[in-house]
Amino acid sequence: MNVDYALLTDLYQITMAQGYWDAEKAGEEACFTMYFRDYPFKGGYAVACGMAQLADLVETFRFSEEDIAYLASLDAPAGGPLFDPAFLEYLRDLRLSVDIDAVPEGTIVFPHEPLVRVTGPIMQCQLIETALLNMVNFQTLIATKAARVCRAAKGRPVAEFGLRRAQGLGGVWTSRAAVVGGCASTSNVLAGKLFDIPVSGTHAHSWVMSFDDELTAFREYARIFPNNCILLVDTYDVEQGIRNAITVGLEMRERGERLAGIRIDSGDLSWLSKMARRMLDEAGLTDCGIVLSNDLDEYTIQSMLEEGADVMSFGVGTKLASAYDQPTLGGVYKLAAVRAGEGAPWTARLKISESAAKLTTPGVLDVRRYYQSDGRIAGDMVFDVNETPDAREVIVDPMDDLRQKNLSGLRFETLLRPLARVGKVVLAPEDRSAMAARARACVGLETLDETQLRMLNPHTYPVGLELGLNERRRVLVAELRHIL
Amino acid sequence: MNVDYALLTDLYQITMAQGYWDAEKAGEEACFTMYFRDYPFKGGYAVACGMAQLADLVETFRFSEEDIAYLASLDAPAGGPLFDPAFLEYLRDLRLSVDIDAVPEGTIVFPHEPLVRVTGPIMQCQLIETALLNMVNFQTLIATKAARVCRAAKGRPVAEFGLRRAQGLGGVWTSRAAVVGGCASTSNVLAGKLFDIPVSGTHAHSWVMSFDDELTAFREYARIFPNNCILLVDTYDVEQGIRNAITVGLEMRERGERLAGIRIDSGDLSWLSKMARRMLDEAGLTDCGIVLSNDLDEYTIQSMLEEGADVMSFGVGTKLASAYDQPTLGGVYKLAAVRAGEGAPWTARLKISESAAKLTTPGVLDVRRYYQSDGRIAGDMVFDVNETPDAREVIVDPMDDLRQKNLSGLRFETLLRPLARVGKVVLAPEDRSAMAARARACVGLETLDETQLRMLNPHTYPVGLELGLNERRRVLVAELRHIL
Repeated sequence: MNVDYALLTDLYQITMAQGYWDAEKAGEEACFTMYFRDYPFKGGYAVACGMAQLADLVETFRFSEEDIAYLASLDAPAGGPLFDPAFLEYLRDLRLSVDIDAVPEGTIVFPHEPLVRVTGPIMQCQLIETALLNMVNFQTLIATKAARVCRAAKGRPVAEFGLRRAQGLGGVWTSRAAVVGGCASTSNVLAGKLFDIPVSGTHAHSWVMSFDDELTAFREYARIFPNNCILLVDTYDVEQGIRNAITVGLEMRERGERLAGIRIDSGDLSWLSKMARRMLDEAGLTDCGIVLSNDLDEYTIQSMLEEGADVMSFGVGTKLASAYDQPTLGGVYKLAAVRAGEGAPWTARLKISESAAKLTTPGVLDVRRYYQSDGRIAGDMVFDVNETPDAREVIVDPMDDLRQKNLSGLRFETLLRPLARVGKVVLAPEDRSAMAARARACVGLETLDETQLRMLNPHTYPVGLELGLNERRRVLVAELRHIL
Repeated sequence: MNVDYALLTDLYQITMAQGYWDAEKAGEEACFTMYFRDYPFKGGYAVACGMAQLADLVETFRFSEEDIAYLASLDAPAGGPLFDPAFLEYLRDLRLSVDIDAVPEGTIVFPHEPLVRVTGPIMQCQLIETALLNMVNFQTLIATKAARVCRAAKGRPVAEFGLRRAQGLGGVWTSRAAVVGGCASTSNVLAGKLFDIPVSGTHAHSWVMSFDDELTAFREYARIFPNNCILLVDTYDVEQGIRNAITVGLEMRERGERLAGIRIDSGDLSWLSKMARRMLDEAGLTDCGIVLSNDLDEYTIQSMLEEGADVMSFGVGTKLASAYDQPTLGGVYKLAAVRAGEGAPWTARLKISESAAKLTTPGVLDVRRYYQSDGRIAGDMVFDVNETPDAREVIVDPMDDLRQKNLSGLRFETLLRPLARVGKVVLAPEDRSAMAARARACVGLETLDETQLRMLNPHTYPVGLELGLNERRRVLVAELRHIL
């Protein structure tokens, strides 16, 4: 899918770009940090995703002749062309030269820590802001939702099949993010092809309705797909549907084939699954599994399994594909430092807002993740890569100075990895693979404590600022307040 | 944007397609109806959208060599290739030959009535199902949300700028649908270019932060964009920001220019807007407008205007772009009739489910919309185009036989219009224009009663089945129950 990423932006980014160009600030360098402030779904973690598409953007970013012609056609509200023709000439020749550092896809992440850091000419940093936020916000949201759903399924495979209810073409990346978060497969064929992720699916109610009776429909399906036979039993009446499936299952067995499963897509799934299990077992089809679907999410799956529903796998659509209960992640991309040009010293920048929660963190930031001796993660320290961290290795909650934690003596790793250098993607192919990201998320979730994985009111993981960074931020706030 | 629409589908559609092909049903014809069951946002209406993208699909639908190679690479769960090579040969040569009828974009629509009808080889009807639902569900949802937001704004322009929080590339169509629903413009440059819709935007906080002080940042912006100058005043402190904007506004006036507005993006917008109005007026800048943004939706806008907030225009992002309070429309696409081949008589099909609400309506359906003499709409009648409607012109609520309404004597029009014939799009260019759809929605909303437009507990508009259709549906249910 070819996307014109140069125009996938808010108009004000291009307006500001002309401003920087005109104000002779195009060469000034900036450092932007992308992070989110609140846990999605009131949970205890998030699964980072969207960086592979960001790499696509970096590789293809360019204003085409058609784009330039379009921008030249725009009028300013008070008359006259919106853009200066000389600036549009400049845009035509513009090639990205930014550095991008990001956590690898599948990394477990938390509020207030950088997921992506972009460094380079301020104009370029801004031109990619909107698309970057669009990708990372949405895909991180979906990967997180999928991780929650899969955890509730306790190891049973979850197939994502929400494309029909997804928000337009976003659905293509929904499917990829769902697999990164833990789904075993997707129904989305285009996503399967584009991202090399497993696809699955059998038949719909309409298959049954296209025949004069259900039994004939089942027999035909089993004849054509003996190696992929899961029969949907609720087109007319679930109990009769199961009886018909059993008839076909026994016929398949006589032919040396196997009815892999039945699917129930309406009614009280928990109750019906138990009835189906009894009927299948009584008929001797103990190896025929039960697939459940219909408006499922982590809460309904958890509840059904607690009731003892008998399930081989789940199909999850609408509520996962749209992240129904929280359809956006409010990630932001904030200017954190500026310098006159490459090699010049950085000056930290801060935005004070009406609330402490929206105060930004200044500097060129990265994250140290500390580990306990048992492999569990102990705390994350946000630090400025150009400053020496305080030897005490204490972190301070950016929302509450009184909450501090000492991490000294623990082993740590830093989270951000180079994604692009001077506008060129430096990721290895495996760093863009959805299945590799899925494996990383799986390992990462194991480093969390049970109490942090809990769905309801999870234990908060400690993320804080390095002591020196916290102090510099405090001083900067005081200075800005004084100026104002 | 080139989209591989042939693969933008659920795997089971292709699996069933092979089934139809193998069962020698590929020539059998079907009629599918797309409709939704529940009012979005608990409102009283919806604004249809997504049909222009559906036309794109029809024009470009084709399995490429690459697609065929991908499908050939898929394995069945129990081993062996999933698809028959002869079937894939068939797919390679497949060209759409379906007829599609749909309501024009911007049409006001209601639950239980067809928005789209697809007629043709059953296999083809199914191959386009997922993409059709994806487009029409999502874009109808967003156009409806936009109509609600714009109505709350009482004629003030609303700019959509939610791309950074939109669900991935769905955001491109979000912006188009938002304009169809009534937004005056979008920040989304790619949508502006692709769909010929107005774009707008000025600058962000980062523009201010990139300078050493706010006043310099404002002066520079005004110098570069005297014809598009709206200054964002809340980077550090709103009151000081307004003072700086006034300084620049007065300087502009001396040069014969005009500060078009200031924008406030945080804090209590209603309170701050009144303060800003006073300050601007006292400085003599009575022609400088106030733009408000920050997590707005129809409810916050309504509340602010009730409080007397002074607003020139609104910027609405997250809550509109994701349809935050209800991120999906549960539209479905149901088999309603089959026939052995072109020209053969239609046999109605019905799906009985566990609940009356999910009972489908059989037949080849269209809608008559009846008008009162004052131009307001009186009721919608769903009818079968192959049957003569009962002369009494009474409609029956599909959910409740006792609720009936007599529409006889009123003028009516039918809603579905040809979108494709034998696989070729037959829409005129203006039928694919977002701005024409926007005008249609604007006129359509005027045909609703105030009580139906109300946000809270709106008056329900009467939609029902034609008497004969209702009776045939009743008989079909009884027959199916008897068989089971």
